[in-house]
Amino acid sequence: MPVSLFEEKLLDVSRRHASLVCVGLDVDPSRVPEFLGTEPKSLLAFNRSIIDATVDLVCAYKPNLAFYEALGLEGWALLRATLAAIPRDIPVIADAKREDVGNTAAAYARAIFEGFGFDAVTVGPYLGEDSVLPFLEWKDKGILVLCKTSNPGSSEFQDLMVGRPGAEPRPLYEEVASRVLQWNRHGNCGLVVGATYPAQLRRLREMAPDLPFLIPGVGAQAGDLEATVRFGADRLGQRAIINSARGILYASSGRDFADAARRAARELRDAINRIRFTPLDLTQTAEGRERP
Amino acid sequence: MPVSLFEEKLLDVSRRHASLVCVGLDVDPSRVPEFLGTEPKSLLAFNRSIIDATVDLVCAYKPNLAFYEALGLEGWALLRATLAAIPRDIPVIADAKREDVGNTAAAYARAIFEGFGFDAVTVGPYLGEDSVLPFLEWKDKGILVLCKTSNPGSSEFQDLMVGRPGAEPRPLYEEVASRVLQWNRHGNCGLVVGATYPAQLRRLREMAPDLPFLIPGVGAQAGDLEATVRFGADRLGQRAIINSARGILYASSGRDFADAARRAARELRDAINRIRFTPLDLTQTAEGRERP
Repeated sequence: MPVSLFEEKLLDVSRRHASLVCVGLDVDPSRVPEFLGTEPKSLLAFNRSIIDATVDLVCAYKPNLAFYEALGLEGWALLRATLAAIPRDIPVIADAKREDVGNTAAAYARAIFEGFGFDAVTVGPYLGEDSVLPFLEWKDKGILVLCKTSNPGSSEFQDLMVGRPGAEPRPLYEEVASRVLQWNRHGNCGLVVGATYPAQLRRLREMAPDLPFLIPGVGAQAGDLEATVRFGADRLGQRAIINSARGILYASSGRDFADAARRAARELRDAINRIRFTPLDLTQTAEGRERP
Repeated sequence: MPVSLFEEKLLDVSRRHASLVCVGLDVDPSRVPEFLGTEPKSLLAFNRSIIDATVDLVCAYKPNLAFYEALGLEGWALLRATLAAIPRDIPVIADAKREDVGNTAAAYARAIFEGFGFDAVTVGPYLGEDSVLPFLEWKDKGILVLCKTSNPGSSEFQDLMVGRPGAEPRPLYEEVASRVLQWNRHGNCGLVVGATYPAQLRRLREMAPDLPFLIPGVGAQAGDLEATVRFGADRLGQRAIINSARGILYASSGRDFADAARRAARELRDAINRIRFTPLDLTQTAEGRERP
């Protein structure tokens, strides 16, 4: 199976920074430290400070487009300027959850990949493969399909048992994962799976051992970190993109917000690494890092 | 059941213009008449001409946000200026197909309803009720939920048979419709159902006799108009918003594009009305309109 340029970038940065942490750049004027103000230039200064403070600790950044759209025209300029502040070798995911029919999906893909230059995008599955194809054709990019989402109500449809003639019934989210594996001809697909559903995360990692998983829901949404890492990472402890937004961005509302964000990102990175490198990885103990 | 301000506007304009036609303002620089050029100001001139040419023939306008996003920052300014050219009493639907978890969905709702002033929005169902709630709280607005979409691949997930303990299995799109009826506490919900699936449209209209239906897929996508009107409208021949974009916008690529658009919109409106007013409505014949 080929690996997309997005995935190559992800694995490379993830190794160099020893990190599975993705910072969700969800700027919110009502939560930015008061002394900064809420002007567009203040929000940009905030984003730049967060990026500077975390740039060596992350495997990716993920702005959710909703927060920028909510700021109107200036929000789009802010998004563009924010992206410009991120080093090119760090993958940036557009959390856009877009989905539409053929020629319209193609317009969204152009906007996100060509217009903004994102490395990956989140998309919804409900419209089926032909709606995702215009995204999949961007072979260098990552297409992360919503599978089992982190919100409390995600069971309403995603957990419904679906049946096909002659096949065992299974939950809709498993059906989605199974279809995404078939859509993955260019090796550029991934899944979005909430940290808030560890059993489902485990099952999906069994089904898709090699796909990158974008995993929101640690931190503010309070998913179990131990289970997230053990079940969400692949067998080499990689390919999990563990997103935290509010827990890092708004770790302090004072003048020390950037230091606090750095501390929060480092703590999350280190907590994840303690989990993924225990039980003891023999290669590592052989190097004497764990023992004197 | 209360009726939203969106629905009131819709019914009012639909009656005054005797029209179920919605014009999809999906501006595409590669299809706009060449003599206009493709500058932002040319695209705005195009949109304004289309609006002027069709304003008395429609029940709504529906820009798909993808086409504006694809134009970058200037696209958002173009969308804003386009909306400003539409008379306030005509409902405008943001075809955005947004969906996200709670606080993010709230940001999208603000962007669409407050930022742009849209009267309605399309949203995806996959994340469940809690993801749609932040939209539903805008009681004056219309929340049109993707149910059975018009694209060829919509059966992949939407037609899967889903089962609950003790209940008859039914396709996922029916499950979605049934949930939307429960979400409809403020009377501001509707469904998106493709004209390309007449049997499903009929079934959904039976299930939801009073919801507004946004029906794309006539025209370029070639759904059957007769079935669309008979099955899609409510028992009074109303509450169907039949969208046509390319068939009207690009009816001519010459200098007569606005006249051609007007002709195409009028033909569609009249063809729809011939269907919805036959077999003879007795009230109307009693008024002597059909007979001398």
